[in-house]
Amino acid sequence: MPSYTAPTKDLQYVLHDVLNVSASDIPGYAELESDFTAAVLEEAGKLTSEVIAPLNAVGDAEGCKLENGVVRVPTGFQEAFDQIREGGWTGLDMPEEYGGQNMPYVLGTAVGEMFSAANQAFTMYQGLTHGAASAILAHGSEEQKNTYLPNMVSCQWTGTMNLTEPHCGTDLGLMRTKAEPQGDGSYKISGQKIFISSGEHEMAENIIHLVLAKIPGGPEGIKGVSLFIVPKFMVKEDGSLGERNGVSCGKLEEKMGIHGNSTCVMNYDEATGYLLGEEHKGMRAMFTMMNEARLGVGMQGLAQAEVAYQNAVDYARDRLQGRDVTGTKNPDGPADPLIVHPDVRRMLMDQKSFVEGARAFILWGAHLIDKAHRSNDKDADGLISLLTPVIKGFLTDEGFDMTIQAQQVYGGHGYIEEWGMSQFARDARIAMIYEGANGVQALDLVGRKLAQDGGKHVMAFFELVKNFCSENKDVDGMADFVEPLKKASKDLQAAGMFFMQNGMKNPNAALAGSTDFMHMMGHVCLGLVWGMMARASLSALANGTSDAAFHETKLATGRYYMTRRLPATSMHLARIESGADPVMALAADAF
Amino acid sequence: MPSYTAPTKDLQYVLHDVLNVSASDIPGYAELESDFTAAVLEEAGKLTSEVIAPLNAVGDAEGCKLENGVVRVPTGFQEAFDQIREGGWTGLDMPEEYGGQNMPYVLGTAVGEMFSAANQAFTMYQGLTHGAASAILAHGSEEQKNTYLPNMVSCQWTGTMNLTEPHCGTDLGLMRTKAEPQGDGSYKISGQKIFISSGEHEMAENIIHLVLAKIPGGPEGIKGVSLFIVPKFMVKEDGSLGERNGVSCGKLEEKMGIHGNSTCVMNYDEATGYLLGEEHKGMRAMFTMMNEARLGVGMQGLAQAEVAYQNAVDYARDRLQGRDVTGTKNPDGPADPLIVHPDVRRMLMDQKSFVEGARAFILWGAHLIDKAHRSNDKDADGLISLLTPVIKGFLTDEGFDMTIQAQQVYGGHGYIEEWGMSQFARDARIAMIYEGANGVQALDLVGRKLAQDGGKHVMAFFELVKNFCSENKDVDGMADFVEPLKKASKDLQAAGMFFMQNGMKNPNAALAGSTDFMHMMGHVCLGLVWGMMARASLSALANGTSDAAFHETKLATGRYYMTRRLPATSMHLARIESGADPVMALAADAF
Repeated sequence: MPSYTAPTKDLQYVLHDVLNVSASDIPGYAELESDFTAAVLEEAGKLTSEVIAPLNAVGDAEGCKLENGVVRVPTGFQEAFDQIREGGWTGLDMPEEYGGQNMPYVLGTAVGEMFSAANQAFTMYQGLTHGAASAILAHGSEEQKNTYLPNMVSCQWTGTMNLTEPHCGTDLGLMRTKAEPQGDGSYKISGQKIFISSGEHEMAENIIHLVLAKIPGGPEGIKGVSLFIVPKFMVKEDGSLGERNGVSCGKLEEKMGIHGNSTCVMNYDEATGYLLGEEHKGMRAMFTMMNEARLGVGMQGLAQAEVAYQNAVDYARDRLQGRDVTGTKNPDGPADPLIVHPDVRRMLMDQKSFVEGARAFILWGAHLIDKAHRSNDKDADGLISLLTPVIKGFLTDEGFDMTIQAQQVYGGHGYIEEWGMSQFARDARIAMIYEGANGVQALDLVGRKLAQDGGKHVMAFFELVKNFCSENKDVDGMADFVEPLKKASKDLQAAGMFFMQNGMKNPNAALAGSTDFMHMMGHVCLGLVWGMMARASLSALANGTSDAAFHETKLATGRYYMTRRLPATSMHLARIESGADPVMALAADAF
Repeated sequence: MPSYTAPTKDLQYVLHDVLNVSASDIPGYAELESDFTAAVLEEAGKLTSEVIAPLNAVGDAEGCKLENGVVRVPTGFQEAFDQIREGGWTGLDMPEEYGGQNMPYVLGTAVGEMFSAANQAFTMYQGLTHGAASAILAHGSEEQKNTYLPNMVSCQWTGTMNLTEPHCGTDLGLMRTKAEPQGDGSYKISGQKIFISSGEHEMAENIIHLVLAKIPGGPEGIKGVSLFIVPKFMVKEDGSLGERNGVSCGKLEEKMGIHGNSTCVMNYDEATGYLLGEEHKGMRAMFTMMNEARLGVGMQGLAQAEVAYQNAVDYARDRLQGRDVTGTKNPDGPADPLIVHPDVRRMLMDQKSFVEGARAFILWGAHLIDKAHRSNDKDADGLISLLTPVIKGFLTDEGFDMTIQAQQVYGGHGYIEEWGMSQFARDARIAMIYEGANGVQALDLVGRKLAQDGGKHVMAFFELVKNFCSENKDVDGMADFVEPLKKASKDLQAAGMFFMQNGMKNPNAALAGSTDFMHMMGHVCLGLVWGMMARASLSALANGTSDAAFHETKLATGRYYMTRRLPATSMHLARIESGADPVMALAADAF
């Protein structure tokens, strides 16, 4: 069975050596001193590696079961869920007035990586609740906040997000679920929603569904969509639970992975619902949470890659197979460990350099979100809005590839469920799809974010990279990072230029290259954060750190990324510059 | 449920328009006239799409079950297996004297693609039998051939290959299974083999296991390994079946995919076995079949990509979601079909251009095998030996990626088992691992095949590409193919040069780039066959073909590959030229 070791040291490194959080001028960041974050991370690390991770394979093997309308979660999930509730882990970054601990989002994100890596399917029960609570926090009335948030922050009640219907996923304007006003401020919700994660289960006393639906007579399409709160059990005025609402789970989906999470078909049959936010402004309410939700999914890509990588390293060290061609490394054994072989090293270095880069990228993103929300920094808000589709799309595409690499290290044993490597790949696969499929992320990036506010944010991003390069170009040891980053950034700018010159005439000239652009930008971002880490580690070494080995390893891993992964940008640029023609040449019936 | 349409037209195109098989000066090829191959392919197409393909999802859902030592295959497998036996499909390219039809391997390969695409797990029962029969054909005594082949060619008996043991896969020198000589020419085989595909089942009257084992007192390591025939039921002198031999299935593995095939732990407990070929020459006997077996696995990569692609196209045409940014295509419907969107097109074109290129590559490879075997052409033998790891490694890596792309077209529905897209990806995943993991293919290519016979074969390959380019550079319409191919081939040669200059001093400088080289060479090969197809289609158009649309589509698809996929070679070259240092920088305990 695979194991999970919480990467607390590396998380601390990014928080303190790289982002220097406790010195940041953001409300709440002064508290993030190294001792404090260490204590939080250690505690979360213990819980995730010892309690949550051992349930990962159990959840995969057992899955969820629907019996007479009741969903049974896998063995051990209820007890573990009780434990995270009791530990206060569910409201880490939620306001104190609703029972949260009001910690910065960056710390919640660091903790969140560990939960996700330990058990993605399990962690989704609290993750969806967090998303739904955030929506109520942002758009709810005082009464709604008081009614729902305390129990959702503590996960006494869990939450869901209901968007997709059988005939519409990305294109929510096609939605059919209806909300009939009852004249008393409430609505009757009727329709069917699918792919509802954590849609039904008995781990919580109540489930608060957030449901997109159309109020009859409203505008056509996406502009007529409103968001509703639909509790599983009605909540009485005194806060106690009343009768069962008209919402039920019609079916559990059989999926490729995340078996431990109940993915439900939800049937709404004149269920009582309450408008959240304004009429017909449902999409806006959803979108305000999008940055966080998508960052959370990007994190799942990183998290599955991390746990898969850890196990691949263990296997590569233990499994004796073949001999090092440059000279035996294990003369007393029947063979050398797999890790001596260059192609195995390549796979491990791909994974390691991705995982550590992605971790820094995510935490940098979370730091920008804090800056935007806590310091009301518009530039940070614009930048994270630009980077969000990259975090979601690039990190989940790459994260999945890394789980496949990790599985490959195991050879035939990687294909056998017993070893657990298959589950990491199967679970990671969903992150490329949900919360906006990665093609939609690329479309968001190229079709919307590049031009947002007159292209201000992408220009700021290029400026940031340029400044980093000029500030560091003469720093000893930084040339290995600055030069490749400059080259990659130049490729990215050339691609952006191509879009500007051709996309106005023919939008397809830009859209045909959208996924390539997203990946290019992902590489530039990872190149940038590797540069930031290199700078931090070079400083630590120059200052006579007591942990030189850690920093030397960090530098070597970063150099690998710059040398072996960043050259992908030139391939993406070549593809982009071929424009729309090769992609759109065929008639639809010629396929 | 997904469907499968046999690509008979495209197979015919490659056989006749591109490879011009019936005009080839190879014994048996004159028979391969267009009408004849069309009849065979149509018949096989009907069988695979109507009978075999519908069992694919059944096999995945039910899997195989071990009950009191007996393995139950999924519903319908027995009847379908009877049907392919009755149709004579199992011995297509086997000698007539053993009941086969003696057709060229190239036709067997074309038929084989359809079986694999329709149902990989099912097809493995006959595939492994074919492999084992080939080994007996190549290395068996007359008596052994007469005893086993007629029933194996007809699949009355099936066959298996037993290599892997719990502690050794790639490194078979570590093998522990023993073969004690009994003085009467037979041996007693004892030991445990794992990952034995089709190891036990009741679809055939007998199972002929080919087992690698060590004869005590023989040379150490891989040089002391011999190959044995171990029947499940002893075969009496009159050919009838006798008592059960000491071999049994101890366990069925739970796997990520190919659930319909029984992957067995096989226990040999003083089972009676008979030496196949010479003592201690077991690996040589295995290797003579390797080219065909690996080509067959490469074909699985293509086959799963093909069937996944077909379904992705159907879905992209049917599913209405969003609007074409350049103007509505379906004004009467609520939305346009997915296929209007450039990023969906990109995914479909990636798949289409891969699948059609891979098909031509595989059939060209099979043609080389026929040339080598039937015409005793040493150059063809050298070339296919060089190309084999590329066919296996590149086509299965890419084939898997294409199943992931196809799944992505479905959005959330791709993740749900009901739609079948997950199965294509899960089944395709194994092909990257078995018959030598892809890293081992890359090692074989770079560490062995490049230098084989003084580098003669790789030089011949470059010469072939060069000649193709110079012969076609002035042909109208060929510049789109010749120029990118030249560029990619130049990158590949530069990589080969880097290995020559650095690999002698430090083998790791070559091995660290082995997988990149394999992928580069795969792209060059697909570029070459796309060039061959372009030439064929341009000729057809110049000659006033009645099917201009087919050839125009072929050309557009080829141009996509040349423009959008071939630029990958420069990325691989950059990685290769970074040498061993980035890959090998860390100590094993620094991961």
